[in-house]
Amino acid sequence: MAALFRQLTLCGVGLIGGSFALTARRLGLVDRIVGLGRTQANLDVALARGLVDSATRDPAKAARGADLVMLATPVMTFPATLAAMTPHLPADAVVTDVGSVKTWVVRELEPLLGPGMALVGVHPVAGKETTGAAAAEEGLFAGRRVIVTPSGRSSAGAVERVEALWRATGAKVERMAPEVHDAILARASHLPQIAASALAAALAEENVDGKWAAGFGAGGLRDTTRIAASSPEMWRDICLTNREAIAAALKLYRDAFAQFERAVACGDGGELMRLFERGRAMRERIK
Amino acid sequence: MAALFRQLTLCGVGLIGGSFALTARRLGLVDRIVGLGRTQANLDVALARGLVDSATRDPAKAARGADLVMLATPVMTFPATLAAMTPHLPADAVVTDVGSVKTWVVRELEPLLGPGMALVGVHPVAGKETTGAAAAEEGLFAGRRVIVTPSGRSSAGAVERVEALWRATGAKVERMAPEVHDAILARASHLPQIAASALAAALAEENVDGKWAAGFGAGGLRDTTRIAASSPEMWRDICLTNREAIAAALKLYRDAFAQFERAVACGDGGELMRLFERGRAMRERIK
Repeated sequence: MAALFRQLTLCGVGLIGGSFALTARRLGLVDRIVGLGRTQANLDVALARGLVDSATRDPAKAARGADLVMLATPVMTFPATLAAMTPHLPADAVVTDVGSVKTWVVRELEPLLGPGMALVGVHPVAGKETTGAAAAEEGLFAGRRVIVTPSGRSSAGAVERVEALWRATGAKVERMAPEVHDAILARASHLPQIAASALAAALAEENVDGKWAAGFGAGGLRDTTRIAASSPEMWRDICLTNREAIAAALKLYRDAFAQFERAVACGDGGELMRLFERGRAMRERIK
Repeated sequence: MAALFRQLTLCGVGLIGGSFALTARRLGLVDRIVGLGRTQANLDVALARGLVDSATRDPAKAARGADLVMLATPVMTFPATLAAMTPHLPADAVVTDVGSVKTWVVRELEPLLGPGMALVGVHPVAGKETTGAAAAEEGLFAGRRVIVTPSGRSSAGAVERVEALWRATGAKVERMAPEVHDAILARASHLPQIAASALAAALAEENVDGKWAAGFGAGGLRDTTRIAASSPEMWRDICLTNREAIAAALKLYRDAFAQFERAVACGDGGELMRLFERGRAMRERIK
């Protein structure tokens, strides 16, 4: 495949960015990849694994020659990173990101762009609880959903080139308004994260008769808390940048949980059956 | 290994009972297994898979000659099943169960026993979200925790014979008072079930812009709701028979969830970090 961009500068060589780099290099989607990172240790892993051609901790150096910038660090670091890079970017650079929140990203990043630049927000829905360049894997996006959220200002050409990149990874690419994306993901992703983390936090130090209760959990507890091992920093940023949509999703959940709580307190067997059945039917649907 | 019992009558040939039967037959722990069931279809699967030597839907017939009765149906059906069997059981029969709740079982079943009979409560902590004889598997208990909860009335001999059975399956056998068991499992198992089911129920019919939000979930949503596919009837019974302990566990969780909710509403980044870190530390501990 002919390369779609000459130089990708990847800001943040973690699970998502690193996996994209690995895939893009194997498929020849870009000619060259420069990794920008915060810690030399992670950049060393990225170099050793061949995720990037070169690596730096200097945003100005990373910016030079980049016709594509991909922001793949925790969301709240995007504005500072991009601001440090824009003076050194080519005038027609395309900026994209892989953050889990989109309205905030558009609002914060577009004012930082030069007049010839375009922002194309992307969210690859392919997280895992592992982090860092060591966790990157080729094929992470095959068959996975990748949501592209153009803003009013994104140029049609830039949107198409970014979509072509992601389609080439085997992902199912879908367009959506940033606000719709944020409301959906608050429910389908941010809420499950908080439900899992709250469960883990509730049991963190809970002892009964001198025994740590969580130590008696089986596969159910392990599955239900698996994503609680995810990066606290990443999730703090998601919570801070998608507050209203997440608050609405949390309220949905609080209401459903309260229904279970009332049914347990009242010993209402019929209502418990109805609630567990409702949960089961939903679970069958996402199998 | 010499058989520990002549005839096991297994009431309920589902995942746990059926897996125990398969293991007991392969290891020769009992001479003969009679399956008692509610539906002929499931008993036919049990016979076809060789889980039991014979099968019946008649409790009186199932009781005859059983020196060991294992109750493995939803907990609330235990009293009626046992009451229908006791007149036909040998005078020194040992009764055991594999229910997830123990205080209620002791309270409800012991009055039904003949003077020479003994009840030994057991909880194999090895659930899966699958059900029925078709889901039974040998080796399900190897390395898993099996909690034995003798009551004041359980004879030492009966407790030891039942423990020997479970140790032979490769399980890690542990003794505990019924009340301690119920408080621990309310936290480690019943709470995660309700958290998962409430999440699934909350998202069951939640649409955004005409799209079903849960359809956009990735591995996180799938893992966090996996056990919501479990049997509603089984979980209704657990909730009804362990009400107080579960209510206390739900309150623990409600408080932890409310802390996340407040931190999101206030946009308190430091508190969000602390909460996600707390959850992550707990998750690392049960890895």
